[in-house]
Parts: sequence; C-alpha cells; structure tokens
Amino acid sequence: MLDQVHTRVNISESIPWLLLLLRRLLLLSLSLTQAILSRSIIPVSAAANTVDKSVSAIRFLAIDAIEKANSGHPGLPMGRAPMGHILYDEVMKYNPKNPYWFNRDRFVLSAGHGCMLQYALLHLAGYDAVKEEDLKSFRQWGSKTPGHPENFETPGVEVTTGLNQISLLTSHRVKICETNFGFHMYFCVGPLGQGIANVVGLALAEKHLAARYNKPDSEIVDHYTYCILGDGCQMEGISNEACSLAGHWGLGKLIAFYDDNHISIDGDTEIAFTENVDLRFEALGWHVIWVKNGNHGYDEIRAAINEAKAVTDKPTLIKVTTTIGFGSPNMANSHNVHGSVLGAKEVEATRKNLGWPYEPFHVPEDVKKHWSRHVSEGAAFEAEWNAKIAEYENKYPEEAAELKSIITGQLPTGWEKALPTYTPESPANATRNLSQANLNAFAKVLPGILGGSADVTSCFGVIYVMTHDSIGMGEDGPTHQPIEHLSSFRAMPNILMLRPADGNETAGAYKVAVENRKRPSVLALSRQKLPQLPGTSIEGVAKGGYIISDNSSGNKPDAILIGTGSELEIAAKAADELRKEGKAVRVVSFACWELFDEQSDEYKESVLPGAVTARVSIEAGTTFGWEKIVGSDKT
Amino acid sequence: MLDQVHTRVNISESIPWLLLLLRRLLLLSLSLTQAILSRSIIPVSAAANTVDKSVSAIRFLAIDAIEKANSGHPGLPMGRAPMGHILYDEVMKYNPKNPYWFNRDRFVLSAGHGCMLQYALLHLAGYDAVKEEDLKSFRQWGSKTPGHPENFETPGVEVTTGLNQISLLTSHRVKICETNFGFHMYFCVGPLGQGIANVVGLALAEKHLAARYNKPDSEIVDHYTYCILGDGCQMEGISNEACSLAGHWGLGKLIAFYDDNHISIDGDTEIAFTENVDLRFEALGWHVIWVKNGNHGYDEIRAAINEAKAVTDKPTLIKVTTTIGFGSPNMANSHNVHGSVLGAKEVEATRKNLGWPYEPFHVPEDVKKHWSRHVSEGAAFEAEWNAKIAEYENKYPEEAAELKSIITGQLPTGWEKALPTYTPESPANATRNLSQANLNAFAKVLPGILGGSADVTSCFGVIYVMTHDSIGMGEDGPTHQPIEHLSSFRAMPNILMLRPADGNETAGAYKVAVENRKRPSVLALSRQKLPQLPGTSIEGVAKGGYIISDNSSGNKPDAILIGTGSELEIAAKAADELRKEGKAVRVVSFACWELFDEQSDEYKESVLPGAVTARVSIEAGTTFGWEKIVGSDKT
Repeated sequence: MLDQVHTRVNISESIPWLLLLLRRLLLLSLSLTQAILSRSIIPVSAAANTVDKSVSAIRFLAIDAIEKANSGHPGLPMGRAPMGHILYDEVMKYNPKNPYWFNRDRFVLSAGHGCMLQYALLHLAGYDAVKEEDLKSFRQWGSKTPGHPENFETPGVEVTTGLNQISLLTSHRVKICETNFGFHMYFCVGPLGQGIANVVGLALAEKHLAARYNKPDSEIVDHYTYCILGDGCQMEGISNEACSLAGHWGLGKLIAFYDDNHISIDGDTEIAFTENVDLRFEALGWHVIWVKNGNHGYDEIRAAINEAKAVTDKPTLIKVTTTIGFGSPNMANSHNVHGSVLGAKEVEATRKNLGWPYEPFHVPEDVKKHWSRHVSEGAAFEAEWNAKIAEYENKYPEEAAELKSIITGQLPTGWEKALPTYTPESPANATRNLSQANLNAFAKVLPGILGGSADVTSCFGVIYVMTHDSIGMGEDGPTHQPIEHLSSFRAMPNILMLRPADGNETAGAYKVAVENRKRPSVLALSRQKLPQLPGTSIEGVAKGGYIISDNSSGNKPDAILIGTGSELEIAAKAADELRKEGKAVRVVSFACWELFDEQSDEYKESVLPGAVTARVSIEAGTTFGWEKIVGSDKT
Repeated sequence: MLDQVHTRVNISESIPWLLLLLRRLLLLSLSLTQAILSRSIIPVSAAANTVDKSVSAIRFLAIDAIEKANSGHPGLPMGRAPMGHILYDEVMKYNPKNPYWFNRDRFVLSAGHGCMLQYALLHLAGYDAVKEEDLKSFRQWGSKTPGHPENFETPGVEVTTGLNQISLLTSHRVKICETNFGFHMYFCVGPLGQGIANVVGLALAEKHLAARYNKPDSEIVDHYTYCILGDGCQMEGISNEACSLAGHWGLGKLIAFYDDNHISIDGDTEIAFTENVDLRFEALGWHVIWVKNGNHGYDEIRAAINEAKAVTDKPTLIKVTTTIGFGSPNMANSHNVHGSVLGAKEVEATRKNLGWPYEPFHVPEDVKKHWSRHVSEGAAFEAEWNAKIAEYENKYPEEAAELKSIITGQLPTGWEKALPTYTPESPANATRNLSQANLNAFAKVLPGILGGSADVTSCFGVIYVMTHDSIGMGEDGPTHQPIEHLSSFRAMPNILMLRPADGNETAGAYKVAVENRKRPSVLALSRQKLPQLPGTSIEGVAKGGYIISDNSSGNKPDAILIGTGSELEIAAKAADELRKEGKAVRVVSFACWELFDEQSDEYKESVLPGAVTARVSIEAGTTFGWEKIVGSDKT
C-alpha cells in the first residue's frame, strides 16, 4: 500500500499522506499489541449471524417494552443497538452478579431517554435487576425500569441521566455517588449532557486512583469508562465544560460514542445545531474517530474501540453515524421516532422488515446461550482481581488500607479529632479561609478527599462549597450579592444547607458534611472576616439549631433572636444590648434547618419553646420560608 | 509578493499558499471597499502619539480608581486598554448624550470584573453617567460605578455582567432588557460567560429586525455588537452554547475579542484550561483571527476589525494576545494583578515605567480634546438616522409603526382581546398546549414576540416557559419530577412565578407576563390534560390569588382549600365532597404569590380571612414556604 501511494502522487505532495499513514499504522500496531495483552480483546467466536440476531434482539426488546408501556423513546435503542451489543458483549469487563465490583468498566448512557437500550443489554448480560418481568413493567410505578435510568433503582446503572429540568441538586442526584467509590469529583448539574459530565468524573477518579495506588508490579486500578451521548448532550454547555477538562487531563481511558443521527427532538439538526462536533472535540484535546456505518459496520466499531484504547494520552470521541429508529420502514430517520411509540402496525412492519418472527419479549435460544457466558466470565474477572488485591495487600498494606477505605467510604476512627477548634480569643477570619483550614487538616486523615478547583469555586465530593456568601461581598456589587440562594437550597429535599458563623461552626459544618455522604451538603462561606463567637460549637451545628447564649430562666425568654452565618454576630450583639435593658434574651444559631427538623420534639421545644412567639430571624437573604421558624402571625 | 512565493517553493506545494493568499487579498479588498463605504472607517487623524497617550490615560484612570477604592481588578483594563481605545475611539458608532439611541453599536464587557476599562472609556467618550467624580467613587455604595457593570445603574452599559453566583434569574437581571428594545431572546443565566451569551441575543435581535424591516432603499437597522471576553468566560458552558447558536445563525455583525493573556484567577491557564480556543470557534462556525501583539499592535487590531466586518456570514472571534497588568514592572503577567490593587509603590513604578507623570485621575488636555469630538459626532449619527427613519415612515408607515412599537415596547391598544377564553365545556387540555394557543394568537397583535426553541424548552423575551411541570410527567420517571422549583422561583425577588390551572388561567398568566416586562415571569405548564374549571378567570390570575368557588356566607367558610396549577382541580373536587357533607368550603386559586402580595389588605382579607385558620394547600411540590399562606401553627 505504501508503494501505491508512492506511485500515485509525487513525493512533495505525499509527505502529509505518509505521516498520516504511518500514524495509522502505529496506532494499529499499538492496538494489536494492546489487544493481545488485554483480556478485553474482542472474541472472534461470535458468528456474524449471532451478532445480527443479538442486535435485533436488543432492538425488539426495546420496541416491545415501549409498545407495552405505550410510552418511551424507541428511536435511540433501535439506532444504537450495534454499539450497545459490541460494548456489552465484546468489550466491557463487568460482573453481572456483582454490579458494584470495583474494577468494572463503567458505562453511562448520557442520553438517558434511550434507557431501554441499557435495560435490554443488562437483561441479556444477566444482571438480576432486569429480568423479563422488569422489561414488561418498563415505565411503570415502582418498577426497576423507570423512564430514565436511575442508579439507585437499577443496580448496573452507574449514573442517573437524562434530566430535563433546570435544577441544581435534587434528592435523586444524591445517589449518584452511592454506588461508586468514596469521595470523587462529580459535575452533577441538571440537564442533558450531565451524563457525559459524570463520565469525566468517573474517568478522572480512575486515573487519579491508578496514579496513587498502582505499582509497577500491580495495576489494581485499571478500567475504562464508556459513554453514549447524542446531539441533545452536545448542545448543553455542561458537556463542553466537562469535555474540555477531560482533554486537559488527558483521560485516555474515557471512550465516548457520539450518536450522530442528525435528528433532534424538533427535527433535523440542521434547524439548530450545525457546528462541527468532531473539530470541536479535537480543539478540546480529544482523539476523534468517525464510524461512517453505525447501522451495520460492526468491524468499523470494533476497530474504532481498539484505536481508542491505543491512544492512551487523550480521551476518544467515536462519532458513529446511525439511523434513528433503524428498521422501522415508515418512521426511521425522523424525529417522530424519538419519543413516540411505533404503534402496533409499525411494530409489525418493523418485524417484517428486519426479519424478526418472534413473539414480543422473546429472546431466541442461541442469542441467550451466546450471552450466558458473561455470568461465569464476570465472576472470573472479579476473582482474578480479588487475588490481585490480596497480593497487593500483602506487599503494600498501607496503600491497600487507604484504597479500601476510599472504596468502602468508611471513615477512619477518630478522624474527627483532626477538626480544628477555636475560642473567642482566636482571630476573626473569613469562613472560607476557616474552610481551607479544615480541608488541610483532612488531607492527613481522609485520603479519599479529592479537591477540584475551577475558576473561583471549589467542589469536594458531594460537598458544595459556596465561597461568596450574600452581601458581605460588598464592593463587587449586586451581581455578587444573591439573596435567594439559601432559600432555594432549603427548598430542595435531601440536601443539607449549612451556613456556619465562625471557626467552630465551620468545623461543625464539615463534620456534618463528611458524615452525611448519602445526601449532598452545601456550605455557604463568607469572604469577609467574622469573629469567633462565644457559645458556638461543633456539636451544636450537628443539631441544626442550638442556643449559643441565654440569660432567661425556665425556658421562658422574653425574646428569641435567631441568626445564621455572618448575622449570628449581629444577633449576639443585639442580645447584649437588650440584656443591658433588663430583657431575658436567647440567641439561637440556626446553622442548618434540615438537621433541626430531624431532632426530637423535646429538643426543639427546648430551643424554640412554643409559648415564646417573640422571635426575630436575622439573615442576609430573602425571608421566604422563615415563617416556619418565626411564625406566620404578623401581630 | 506572489513572485516571491513562486520562486521559493515549487508550484505543487504552493497551491495551498496561493489559495490562502488570494483569500487574504480578497478579504483585504472587501474590507477596503467596506471601509470606504462605511462611516465607521478608522480615522487617520489620530496621531500615533495621541493614541499612545489615550491608551495610557485609560490604563491610569483604571489604576487610580482601583487604588482609591482599594479594591478591584486592575489586570484586565491594563491589558485591554488598546482594544478598548480602538473600539470606542475609532470604530463604534454611538451617541454619548443618548445611550439609548436605537441604532448604536453595542458593546458588552463579558468579563465584567474589568469594568474600570469600560468606565474609563465611557468617561472619555463623554457619557454623563461617568464623570470624574464617578470614577473617584468606584465600588462605593450608591455610586454609578459598581464593582461589576450594571446596565440599570450606568447608562452606556448594555448588559449586567460578571455574575459569579449559581443563580438563574434574579432581580438585577430583570433589567437586562430594559435599556434594549422590546421582546428579544436573551440567555441570561448566571455565571461568567453570560455576557457573550447576551451578545448573541443582541446580535440575533439586530439580524432579525434587519431582515424584517430593512428595505432595499433603507437599511434602518444596521449596527454591530462587540464584546470582550476572557478565559473565565470561555470556560463556562453557557458561552459555548450561545456561540454554537451564533455560528449556526451566521451572525456576521457580532465581533468578539478574546483576551488571550494566559492568566486565570488561579494562575497560568496551563493549570486548568489548555484547549485550542481558536479551533473550537472554527468548529462552531466562526471566523477566527489572531492578533499576536495586543499590547502595541494597534494596526493589527484595526486590520482584524476590518477583516471581521468583511466576513458578513459568520461571527468573528478576534483572539488578542495581551499581557495582563501591562505596564506594571513587578505584577504584570501574573494572576496577582487579576483582582488585587497594585499598591502605592507599584502604582508609582508603573507610572515611571509607562512614562505617565500626571496626578491621579488627570486626563491630559490633548487626550481630552481628541475624544471631545464624540459628542458632536454621536449627535450627527443619531440625527442622520432620525432623518432616515422619518423617510422610512413616509414610505412604509405600517412597518415603521410595527418597528416603533417594538423599540418602545408599547403594546397596541386592545391587544388583550386576542387572549383566548374557555368555558367549563371546552375540552380538557395540557396547559403547555393552551400556552401555544396564546402564542399563536399573539403573533397577529404583538409583532415583537420572538420565539426561540432549543431541544425541549422555549423562551420568549423575559417570559420563561417551563413545559414539564411536576409529577404529571409520570412515566418519564423521577428525573422529570422536580419538587423544589416552584419554591425556588418564589424565593427569587422581582420574579412572577405563575402556575395556571386551565385555559383561562393560562391566558391570564400570559396577560400578566406580557404586561409585566420589567420583571421576568415564569410559567409552569403541564404536559398532561387538565379540565377547564368553573370560576377561573383572566382577571383572577392578575390578582395572584382569588376565589373560584364558595358556598359559605359572611366571609366565614369552615375551611379554605388552596390549590395551584394541576392541583386546583383536586381542590375543587375535594370541596364538592365536603359540601355534600354540609361544610361551607371556599376554593382559592393561588396562581401567583407575588401578585397576591401586592393586593390591598382588604382584598387579601376577603380571600383569606385571618379568622379562618383551617386552610389546606394542595400543590405537587415541596411545602417549603407555604407556612406564610396556611399558617405555621400545626395544632
């Protein structure tokens, strides 16, 4: 072939061609070497006919489930069945009987509306969460197969995806981290595109842990992260943010399939989305491959994956051109097939068109048999890894213990002794600086904490740190003085909104956040200096609301002043003035509403006695929601 | 030069060179033609020395103001002063004495923290909002020169920018549209990058209005939109979303300067941001130009702008490589100069380094004199345009009236007659479909309404339409069932959160939204069908909360059932049941809390009498905040 090039063009023109060719050859040889060395090499055993049948089975499981539910998105699973088959049947390492095996390859369907693709694959691969009856109860109340993938409903689903709402953090997304390991960086903001963003977090975690714990003689952290995303994901800014970072970090084990079907929910992508996605990803530092025939080109897809694996210093985007709703004679390649059922007549026509004579939900025996090996293969993968980690534990007991604590998320006993404490004599400081003191202290005792810092903000695991609290930003002006944020976060279920007032409360807020990893915590921290107040404590913050000072007796103060964060100081000062006038005044720090709600009635009554209605709340923000605490009676 | 190319390389290699050269020559000739035709041609009168002095004056006005405030971001204005000078002194058409002149060129500083650059330019150009005393009160309470640009504080600032908070819509951003014209599409979500996103909205508005109202003999809509953005803007996904659309729409009169200074708030961009921005913008369909010497290369900047204007079918990104904090001997090219004052000693050293012997805030007479022409020139621009529009009005009275109503934002009398109304006999329908009926009706009477639709959502002017309200989404699963959104929006100041229950209420919500264009409205609409309820009305929605049915007398019902949106139907049905049992029950629709708050005490008492504490709220969402309406007493 080299000769052909030589004879066809003159040498000066051919130099770029030669370079390209050499690069391709190099990549190919690398991928072959890799394939020989790797267990995830594509098996040659599956006859083409079985692959075709398996792909058809995936398509029809999706079609049948959506038809039965009379609701769903058939276009995606019909178009992406070939990619899905190759990933789950030929490429990925996983153990269907233990979806939480640590060193599994991860797969995330960023375009979550097409979840029947994933359910069909999990079903064929032998995951217990998706039996035939689960496919038959697709999109039904309480089923394991909801309309968009939920990792807390369906073991085998890594990440909840397909969120359409303008939301920041809701209860559902708390669970994103639960089935994964320890503290990691996630980018879990609402819309389509959040799947690929989570994928960047997963791949970063792998790279980070591999760099920290792998040894020349033992690669105990060694897995790939795969993703399928669509045009809807590409349109969302969050995916560009995350993919820019993935390129920057050179996440070589991240392989994303971009389903290039030219159809969005509103019609042809020509109407709103005509950018050159390939070129954009090259600009972001990705390796980009184009599979032109995603409907039938199994070998093209396989070669692309091998090439992607051979490029170890860049994430790879494999653009796969497919036909949405492939196989449907009258609806394929149209936005009508995106989110509408085919209907009995068109399902029949599709069965005929693709030569699928079977009853709904039927998987032919040879396809079943072909997929059945994944149960034993998966068990073998895990057993092999367990042996490896046992050996690692022998050789490197300290690192092994650390890694285990990260994987299980268990905190070392006595970790909380690292929390810094303060007295009223300690110097005034910004709570965002006091936050830094906590994080520095954790570095020694909590190896799983991984900090990320973008322009301005920092984010730790599921702890959201807000560093520009309220009006204290002062000279930066009103754009930096939000007044609704505290209430907005308090309105979200399953989130702890913490607003510490000083050093002890900042440490208390971190203690709460670290110990509450099944729900996110939001810490609102000041940029301005705040004094260390008498009466504040780590233990107090854990109760949400608590008394920091009181000169009344018998739980009957004349008034209760309730402050949070930077305004607790004002409450304390106001109380001093009132007490000089002979009043019995209680000052309550209300650092976290949600935790106070969870205390016993007795405790609540001891802090906010029902008989005392003279209550004042002091907080630099909207009063929206405060009626619950201070009462709604204006008289 | 062509000959040189020929002799140096052989012909087969030179073909791409030739093409490039021809393209450049073509662009150059186009830009020269354009320059001859256009009034915005760069004047040759300004001697190089004056330009240097003017650029220094801009730098030192920024340095001095920041030093006096002891707070601010000197790095940006010092680095971008040359771009700023050329834009405001040589390129842009504006009238400093009428910042709202319709056909002005727009300028938006997306990196809003560098606002002293813009204040210095507005000051030199003769805008009344920024006198010397305003520069001296930079970043002070109540000044016209806040720490980030605010278009409602400083006439001449087009868009509020530089928002760091995770926020969606706050009171401040309401005003974004006020100084612009009529209804337009804006992308006003919080973070850095929102400036460039607004720029896309402004440029789209220009292109849209030009297409609709310009005539072969009268180009009455004809202005450019300029922007300066930095790395912080580029990192934010919102800028990629907007710029992808700008490329798609081919907004040829959008010219953005990307300040490529290699420094972000945390240090060198190498640490977190290494993507190829030029290539990304090419992928987004932009024309990209690189000015390598942004510190001194005035002619390079001028040529780039001319080239950008010659490319009429694509927006242009001019990457300008600059030195942050240019001129400061010890702080330039470091992230220390991003957001910290230089300090007296370094200011002195910078004065010496740049040869600036003047007192703080002094503008040399020759610089003043040079800039003084903008007042008369600006008046002439506007007068010329006024003559043009007068002629247009004569020739095309209908179009002129329409355009005028868009520019002034005045609604045609009787427009509300177009609102559709319904009776209980009208068929049940989803409120998002009923919304469409309203918009179709408006098309005839409100020419200024410009609808945009991305994947899933639609946005109209400052009316935010949410089309997947609450749990009614059903089978799409919990990712599509937010419960905190209504409360989150209610917590934001100056926003109307509307949740209509049926056809009449949807029309009522649109009436409110269209008539309240100084604050945004959010409409939460259902996907599921809702019945047309007896008692609902357009007028009722305008009052926020109103009685839809009542069988009590003397304003003393036994109980008040309060519903919103899709749950108003449930409240009505529950009332029917209770009434069968002989109870006196009132049903209140609470479509908009904010509007109810604005009613008289008498009206409020007539709807929710204080004496009636048996109140039940029915809403598919968190109860957070409802204590205000139903009371906080749990007994």
